[in-house]
Amino acid sequence: MEVTRQNFKDSLCPIYSAIEEADFLAIDGEFSGISDGPSVSALTNGMDTPGERYVKLRKHSMDFLLFQFGLCTFRYDQSQSKYLMKAFNFYIFPKPFSRNSPDIKFICQSSSIDFLASQGFDFNKVFRSGIPYLNQEEESQLREQYEERRSQVNGAGTPSYISPNSCKGPVNVPDEHKDFIGRVVEKVDALLNSSEKSVELEPCSGFQRKLIYQTLNWKYPKGIHVETVETEKKERFIQISKVDEEERRRMEQQKYEREQEEMNDAVGFSRVIHAVSKSGKLVVGHNMLLDVMHTIHQFYCSLPEELDDFKEVTMCAFGHEADGIHSAFQGKSHRLKSVFSMENRPGDHDLLEALEGVNMDSYCVCAHACVQELITNTSLAELEKQLKEKPFKAPRVECSEGFQSYDTASERLHEAGYDAYITGLCFISMANYLGSFLTPPRSHISARSKLLEPFYNKLFLMRVIDIPYLNISGPDLQPKRDHVLYVTFPKEWKTSDLYQLFSAFGNIQVSWIDDTSAFVSLSQLEQVQIAVNTSQYAESYRIQTYAEYLQAKQKNTNI
Amino acid sequence: MEVTRQNFKDSLCPIYSAIEEADFLAIDGEFSGISDGPSVSALTNGMDTPGERYVKLRKHSMDFLLFQFGLCTFRYDQSQSKYLMKAFNFYIFPKPFSRNSPDIKFICQSSSIDFLASQGFDFNKVFRSGIPYLNQEEESQLREQYEERRSQVNGAGTPSYISPNSCKGPVNVPDEHKDFIGRVVEKVDALLNSSEKSVELEPCSGFQRKLIYQTLNWKYPKGIHVETVETEKKERFIQISKVDEEERRRMEQQKYEREQEEMNDAVGFSRVIHAVSKSGKLVVGHNMLLDVMHTIHQFYCSLPEELDDFKEVTMCAFGHEADGIHSAFQGKSHRLKSVFSMENRPGDHDLLEALEGVNMDSYCVCAHACVQELITNTSLAELEKQLKEKPFKAPRVECSEGFQSYDTASERLHEAGYDAYITGLCFISMANYLGSFLTPPRSHISARSKLLEPFYNKLFLMRVIDIPYLNISGPDLQPKRDHVLYVTFPKEWKTSDLYQLFSAFGNIQVSWIDDTSAFVSLSQLEQVQIAVNTSQYAESYRIQTYAEYLQAKQKNTNI
Ligand SMILES: Nc1nc2c(ncn2[C@@H]2O[C@H](COP(=O)(O)OP(=O)(O)O)[C@@H](O)[C@H]2O)c(=O)[nH]1
Ligand SMILES: Nc1nc2c(ncn2[C@@H]2O[C@H](COP(=O)(O)OP(=O)(O)O)[C@@H](O)[C@H]2O)c(=O)[nH]1
Repeated sequence: MEVTRQNFKDSLCPIYSAIEEADFLAIDGEFSGISDGPSVSALTNGMDTPGERYVKLRKHSMDFLLFQFGLCTFRYDQSQSKYLMKAFNFYIFPKPFSRNSPDIKFICQSSSIDFLASQGFDFNKVFRSGIPYLNQEEESQLREQYEERRSQVNGAGTPSYISPNSCKGPVNVPDEHKDFIGRVVEKVDALLNSSEKSVELEPCSGFQRKLIYQTLNWKYPKGIHVETVETEKKERFIQISKVDEEERRRMEQQKYEREQEEMNDAVGFSRVIHAVSKSGKLVVGHNMLLDVMHTIHQFYCSLPEELDDFKEVTMCAFGHEADGIHSAFQGKSHRLKSVFSMENRPGDHDLLEALEGVNMDSYCVCAHACVQELITNTSLAELEKQLKEKPFKAPRVECSEGFQSYDTASERLHEAGYDAYITGLCFISMANYLGSFLTPPRSHISARSKLLEPFYNKLFLMRVIDIPYLNISGPDLQPKRDHVLYVTFPKEWKTSDLYQLFSAFGNIQVSWIDDTSAFVSLSQLEQVQIAVNTSQYAESYRIQTYAEYLQAKQKNTNI
Repeated sequence: MEVTRQNFKDSLCPIYSAIEEADFLAIDGEFSGISDGPSVSALTNGMDTPGERYVKLRKHSMDFLLFQFGLCTFRYDQSQSKYLMKAFNFYIFPKPFSRNSPDIKFICQSSSIDFLASQGFDFNKVFRSGIPYLNQEEESQLREQYEERRSQVNGAGTPSYISPNSCKGPVNVPDEHKDFIGRVVEKVDALLNSSEKSVELEPCSGFQRKLIYQTLNWKYPKGIHVETVETEKKERFIQISKVDEEERRRMEQQKYEREQEEMNDAVGFSRVIHAVSKSGKLVVGHNMLLDVMHTIHQFYCSLPEELDDFKEVTMCAFGHEADGIHSAFQGKSHRLKSVFSMENRPGDHDLLEALEGVNMDSYCVCAHACVQELITNTSLAELEKQLKEKPFKAPRVECSEGFQSYDTASERLHEAGYDAYITGLCFISMANYLGSFLTPPRSHISARSKLLEPFYNKLFLMRVIDIPYLNISGPDLQPKRDHVLYVTFPKEWKTSDLYQLFSAFGNIQVSWIDDTSAFVSLSQLEQVQIAVNTSQYAESYRIQTYAEYLQAKQKNTNI
C-alpha cells in the first residue's frame, strides 16, 4: 500500500493494527545519498572498528534524507500454516508546515539519485506528496509554541524573556500604534452595540495583532471571541465575534482540537515509528545499520557522538521491552543463508554443534565468521532467489486481504516497501531452515523462538573483514589484528603499487583509508616484522603495525 | 522547447544558431534552494554592502543545484517591426558519466523544493533526464585522463609519480600474476597462428588489465589491437584483434573519435553557456545575481572569495567583447518600469533630465534610487501584466516557426524557460518606453542602443535599502549610513521589542542580521546620538553607530 501525505491520516488505523497483530516487522529505507565526503569504500573500510564505523557514518551520512520508508508486517496464521503480510510504502518529505517550522536542508548525492532514477524511483511523489515528520525535540518545541500562543491569547501571557518596557496591567501601546488600536476598540464597541454577529479587521502586522489581543483581552475579558484567520494569499487578519460564555468556551474547545490535529499532522510519519517502537515487535532489515541510524536521526533525535550512547538510544527507542522480544535482527539476513547453503565448508561443523543447543553466542559468531568471503556481492535480489531453492524452502506468505500484493517475478527492487517485503521473506526462509536442525525437525520457527535470540540486537557491519556485526545490547567483538599493517604513501600510488610493494609476501588484502593510507593484511603473521623492518629505509612510504597505529590514534585523541 | 539529456545533442545546432542570430538573450534559473544557513531575509540584509552580500551568497547559496535553466533568444525583424523569439527550457543534472567522474553532492532546501512542487515542477525530469555538465577545471582533468589512458595504451606510459619497482623495458609482473599473464600471451600466440579474427579474455581487475596492456605493447608492438570492452553488467574485459597496420590505425582513429564524443557529452550543458559567452550578446535577467553566480560556479569555475575577483571572472566569462555590447542587463528589469510608471514622483525630474542625454551615469543611479520603496513585492508575473498597460506598450513578439509558443495567459511561471521569456518581454517594453522620451519619439529601441548602456553590467541587489545594484564593470556606490544604528540584544527579542525600544524616535526600519543583532535606520539624523547616549546605561542591549560597527568589523578581519 502506497502511503503519501494525501492518504496518510486515513491509513493510520490500518497501519497501527497491522503492527499490533504482527509477529514480526521488516523495514527498509531509501536515502538521497550515502556519503558526503569519502567514497563509499573509504566510508566502509574493511578494518573499521564498530566505533570508527559509527562515527564516520554519523559524520558523512546523516545529512542525506531518508525519503522512502518500507514497512512490511508479517502475521503467522497457525490454522493455515502460512504468513499473512501487509506492505506499506511511505513517501517521506519534511514539508515545512508553517512559516515558523524548521526548514530542513538535506544533501543529494548525484550517483545515488541517478541510481534510483534508473530504477524508476518517483521523486515527484516524494517532493509533492511526502509525509512530513518531526523529531521529538521539534515536537516538544512545537507543543510549547502552541501553549505559548494559547496563553497569550488567553491573556495569561508570561513572556519568558526580559522585554524592554514590558509590564502587566493596561497594554503599553507605542505611540505610532495608538491610533490604530483606538480604531479597533471603536469597532468592537460598535459591534457590541449592533445586531451584527462578527467583524473582520484589516490585515496587519504580527506586532499589531499582538497589541490587539492584549488590548481586547484586557478591555473585554468576556463577551467576544478573537481569532486570527489566514486568507488564501497567506495574509492574516483578525476576526472578532460576539459570543456568550458557553459559545466562547465551545469555540475555544474547537480551536484547541484543531490545533491538536495540526500538531499531529506535523508529527506525521514519526507517529508510525513511535508505534513500531511501542509495539516491541521484532524488526528485521537488510544491511540495517544505516536504516536504523537514519530512523533515529529523523524521527527521534540527533545522533549522539559516541557509539555507546547510540546503543543506549537505540535500545531505548527499539529495545525497551523487558521481555527482550523486540529487537533488531542482525541486518544482513543472508549471512544466515550463506552459512547454511555451504554444507561442506570448514566451520559448518562448529555451527551444527552450536545448533545442538549449548552455546548460542558462539553459534552466532561462527555463523558470521565462516562465510566471510561470500558476502560482498550478494544483493537482496539474488538472496531472494537462492532462498527459494534447496536446502531452503520458499516460505508460504500471502498478501492480506485488501492489500496490494507484490509479485516477486516482476521485481520492484529498490522500492522500500518491496525491499522490506523481500527481507521478510528471506528472514522466514532462514528462520525455518534453522528448524530443520532440531530433533524432531520443525518446519516453522516463530519470530520469538529461542533459536533466533542470539541474532537479536545485532546489526550487520557491511564490509568489515573481521567483525561481523555491531552488538547493540552489549560490548563488541575485538578481533586480533596482528597481521595488519598500516601503510602511508604518496597520493599518486594505486592499489597496484601496494601489490608490487608486497609482492614478496604472497596474498595481501588492501583496505583503503584515504588516498595516502591503507591497511594491508598479510596472510602470514611472521611476515609482519619483516615488512616493518624493510620499510625503515624507504623514503616514499611508511609501514606501521596495527598496534602502533592504534597507539598513535589514541594519543591524538587525548591531546 | 524542452531540452533533456535525450534530445540535447540534436538540439545543439538550433540552439547555437538561435544564439547567433539573436539581438539579445534572456536567462533564468531554478535552484534546489537559496540558503543553507541564515534565513533568506538574514541572507539579504537591507544594509549589506555589495561585498558582504556576495560573500554571504557564495558561502550559503552555492551548494544548491541550478537544475533548470531557461534561455530565450530574441531577434528583431525590422521588416515586420516585431521580435521573433525562441525559448529553451533545459533540465540540468550532474549525472556521473563514468566510475571516475566527480560525484557531485548538492543541497536541497525543503521550503524551496516544496514551493517548486506546488508549481508543478517536474523533479523526475531533472533526475532522470537532466543534461550533465562539467566546469572548466573538470573538463581539463577529463581531457588529461583520456590523454593519459591513450598514452598508456600506446605504450608511451610515463607515470607522473614515483612508483616502487617501476622501470622501463619488460614489464615487472608480480609473482601471483605471472601465470595469468602467461596464459594471456599464449592466447595471443594462438590467435596469431589461427584463422580467428579476434579473442576475448575473461573479465579481470584493473591492475591485471594494466599488466596485459603493458605486456602486449611490449611483446607485440604491431599486428594486434587491444581494447577494453564493458559488458551490460559493467564488467570490463579485454578484446584482442588481429589487424594490419592500416586497420590498426583506423581502429585507433575511431576510438579517438568515440572518446572525443564522450568528452563532449560529459561537458554537456556547459557548451551552451560557452556559446552564450562567446556570442557577446546582451543577456538580461530578473533578480539575476544568484543566476549569474550559479552559472559561473557550475559551468566555469568555483567562485573566488572576493567580490572584485568575481567581477573579473564575470567580465571575463560574459563581458570579454571589446565593443562592450555584451553584458548583463541590470537584473531586476522592473526597476525601470517602476521609474517610468510613477510620473509625478519626486526624482522623476532628475530622471527626465538625465534622459535628455547628458549624464547617463546619474540617470541610471537616480532611476534606481527614486523608486526604492516600490520594489520589494513586485513579482515577475505582476510585472508582466503592468508592462502591457499604459504608459507601456505590450511588445510585439512572436514565436519563431517550429518553436512551441508560451501563452502568457496560461501562466507557467517558475518554469525557467517561461520566466526567461517573460523577462525578455519586460525588457522590450521598458527599452521601448525609453524611446518615447526621445525627440522625435521612437517606438523601437534596440538592445544595442546607447540609451541602455548605463544599465549594462549592473546586477540588481535584492532588498538592499540604499545600494540599488552591483556594478560588475567598476567600483560600487557607497551611500552614507549616518542614520543607521547597529543594535545587539538577547536572542529572545522580537521586532516588536525593537519598535518599543525606539518608540520615542518615530519611524524606524529594522534589518535583522541574526537573532541577536540588527541594523535600525532612524528617520532623523539628529536622533542617532541621543539613541547611542541613552543606551550607555542599558544592560540587556547595546547600540553602536554604523561607523563604529564598520570599524570593529575591520579590526576583526585584520586580526
Ligand atoms: N591514492 C590512491 N587512493 C586510492 C586508490 N584507490 C582508492 N583510493 C582511496 O580510497 C578511497 C576509496 O576508493 P575506491 O576506489 O572507492 O576503493 P575500492 O572500492 O576499494 O576500489 C578513495 O576515495 C581514495 O581516497 C588509488 O588507487 N590510489
Ligand atoms: N531574536 C530574534 N531574531 C529574529 C527575529 N526576527 C528575525 N530574526 C533574525 O533574523 C533572521 C531573519 O528573520 P526573518 O523572520 O526571516 O526576517 P524578516 O523577513 O525581516 O521578518 C532570523 O533568522 C533571525 O536570526 C525575532 O523576532 N527575534
